[in-house]
Amino acid sequence: MPELLSGNAVIGQSGGPTAVINQSLAGVVEGLRLGLAASGKVGRILGMRHGVRGLVKPGAEGLLDLTQIDKAKLEAVARTPSAALGSTRDKPDEAYCDKILDGCRRNDIRYFFYIGGNDSADTCRIVSEKAADAGYELRCFHVPKTIDNDLLENDHTPGFPSAARYVSLALMGDALDNASLGGIKINVIMGRNAGFLAAAAAIARGAAPDGAAPQDRPAPHLIYLPEVPFSTDAFLANVEAVYAKLGRCQIAVSEGIRDASGAEIGPKLMRGPGEVDAHGNVQLSGSGALGDGLADLVKTGLTPQGGKAPRVRADTFGYIQRCWPHASPIDSEEARRVGRYAAELAARGDVSGSVIIRRLADAPYASECARADLASVARHTRHVPAEFISGSNDVSAAFYAYCRPLLGDLPKLERL
Amino acid sequence: MPELLSGNAVIGQSGGPTAVINQSLAGVVEGLRLGLAASGKVGRILGMRHGVRGLVKPGAEGLLDLTQIDKAKLEAVARTPSAALGSTRDKPDEAYCDKILDGCRRNDIRYFFYIGGNDSADTCRIVSEKAADAGYELRCFHVPKTIDNDLLENDHTPGFPSAARYVSLALMGDALDNASLGGIKINVIMGRNAGFLAAAAAIARGAAPDGAAPQDRPAPHLIYLPEVPFSTDAFLANVEAVYAKLGRCQIAVSEGIRDASGAEIGPKLMRGPGEVDAHGNVQLSGSGALGDGLADLVKTGLTPQGGKAPRVRADTFGYIQRCWPHASPIDSEEARRVGRYAAELAARGDVSGSVIIRRLADAPYASECARADLASVARHTRHVPAEFISGSNDVSAAFYAYCRPLLGDLPKLERL
Repeated sequence: MPELLSGNAVIGQSGGPTAVINQSLAGVVEGLRLGLAASGKVGRILGMRHGVRGLVKPGAEGLLDLTQIDKAKLEAVARTPSAALGSTRDKPDEAYCDKILDGCRRNDIRYFFYIGGNDSADTCRIVSEKAADAGYELRCFHVPKTIDNDLLENDHTPGFPSAARYVSLALMGDALDNASLGGIKINVIMGRNAGFLAAAAAIARGAAPDGAAPQDRPAPHLIYLPEVPFSTDAFLANVEAVYAKLGRCQIAVSEGIRDASGAEIGPKLMRGPGEVDAHGNVQLSGSGALGDGLADLVKTGLTPQGGKAPRVRADTFGYIQRCWPHASPIDSEEARRVGRYAAELAARGDVSGSVIIRRLADAPYASECARADLASVARHTRHVPAEFISGSNDVSAAFYAYCRPLLGDLPKLERL
Repeated sequence: MPELLSGNAVIGQSGGPTAVINQSLAGVVEGLRLGLAASGKVGRILGMRHGVRGLVKPGAEGLLDLTQIDKAKLEAVARTPSAALGSTRDKPDEAYCDKILDGCRRNDIRYFFYIGGNDSADTCRIVSEKAADAGYELRCFHVPKTIDNDLLENDHTPGFPSAARYVSLALMGDALDNASLGGIKINVIMGRNAGFLAAAAAIARGAAPDGAAPQDRPAPHLIYLPEVPFSTDAFLANVEAVYAKLGRCQIAVSEGIRDASGAEIGPKLMRGPGEVDAHGNVQLSGSGALGDGLADLVKTGLTPQGGKAPRVRADTFGYIQRCWPHASPIDSEEARRVGRYAAELAARGDVSGSVIIRRLADAPYASECARADLASVARHTRHVPAEFISGSNDVSAAFYAYCRPLLGDLPKLERL
């Protein structure tokens, strides 16, 4: 292993926040205090305000000194959802990364920790390479975070279990609401490219899927993921089959569903013009467009039963999925652990790396942290694998077995 | 008091379900078991499937016998959100009430309990009067329930505290999400005619309003209720003032906001044609229309800061507000108590009545049940009173003092 460096450490948070992202922040601070700071290698522990955006500001004006932060305050921050340092949507290119390196030099930073998704891993990778090219010794570590659960190498990512817990609880309550008044209920769930979060709707059933037809399943009766091509004809036929038998139908649909050509369904169903972001994507999150469009589709496309149009409602689960204040206990613990582990990688002399989570056992659930190369996590997107999918509108028993242990205790609901 | 009658009892649930409506069901059953059933006056305790819709079905096919229901099962049902018997949107007219009376005769029902809002109280009133006119002795009791908190005579209504707790928790998390990434965030909250639930967003602040300007308040910075005429110009000016100072703005808005003429804002902003229900109202719940419309308004109406359009997102809080599986403990307890009290009114020989909740003290919080005449609750709508409103976009310290005790413990969040 290379020698340990002497200097300051900086920690940043990037992308969409999660309910447990501050556990990871606290974990890095805690790990540094126990290791490199205790041994005198790290002088100051700095936080970036709004991710790398804070680091590229002149002097140290975008940095917050966390070296002396009170332990009780750090614990209280750890329990608080959303990025306490502030987050950013910036995806640094080469020129931006040069500025990040300047910020590191200016503040004598030798340890760079970035909590985020695959873009953040890529930022770590580029900065690490640029530092090496420039002969500036810098250690770069990526700490995983994303409710989308779409990072390679990881069994799952911190943030996902808490968001999945929220989705599951919401679907549990909503299934009973739907049963009490009847009709068709569409729930649109976050996840543009990976359907893990929408898949977690299945946990609301309280039992693993057994391959039954949609009308013979407990709610949610239909689950649509971006990984499975979405056909509006098949969708209408599925809904009709469930509604005809039960007088109700609860649907969980990922915001990122696509047709067979790969085109997103959301923009095609929008009532008005959509907002296009800097990357050319039509904005879906933070709008009811897909849900309302699917509801319109059902209202006009479904055969009326006895001359009466069904009651159709759509809810779009919004940002609350990622910031609900009650996290999954396992998620809180693991998010803390990946942060601490990143500091441990630094303390043992690693030059760079991405912390990953490996599952050791399901019952009782156990996991461990490990290290992966930045390049193996950076930029790539993990999708819901085929073995987690059942047919065109459900998840498999294997997905249920994978996801259920991560969510913690769920209430036991009773029907008459 | 008139003599007690001998016969069966029937219980129904009506309107939008709540997180604690089954506590009230369990309360009535429990109260009957302790009173009229124990003394032999009530033979069978029946549940209506989907409210009065079950009672008017031929024979007893729409009824469920709860007489022997296991106590542990009843407790488990009580803890479960949404109407376990099924609910209905039917608002019985005179002819429908004749059929209800037929159902009572057919099943030897002498005690009629209906859990619901002001429409349900009105059903009790009409049925009670029809029974008297027909010389059929029937005792009719209304058990209050509505997340809208819009029943007269009541300090508050069962269901509201749990929904308000959900809204408050969601706003707490969302405020931090908004702070971490910036921009303008609109949250649309249920409540078509009464703004109590949107007002509960203020509890997320963790402190009573002190009359500060919107940009100097903790989030949510702006709260709009149906009771205060909504002006789009004032709205844009409010948002701009907050955004200019903070770079962010969190907004809570009731789905039922209206302009100075009383016309609802939602339908005016909708991108496409809206669905009109049987009562001639444009459907707002279960659609993202108002939120998306307000977001469009802000995107086009706000002066760009430094040439950059702000990030604007809207979430429409859906049915989860009323069915989230974790209820407010006070709400659970009170919902049970109003059910039991209705059975006690019957046992003491009352002919009819609506159970109401009176507050006795704020700290520690205490309340009691009492009886009101059906006519004083039926049909009327309670609105957020003037003393709970501050200016055109906030609630008052008096509202905070009123609402806070009902919600139970809330997490303590910490910022850096």
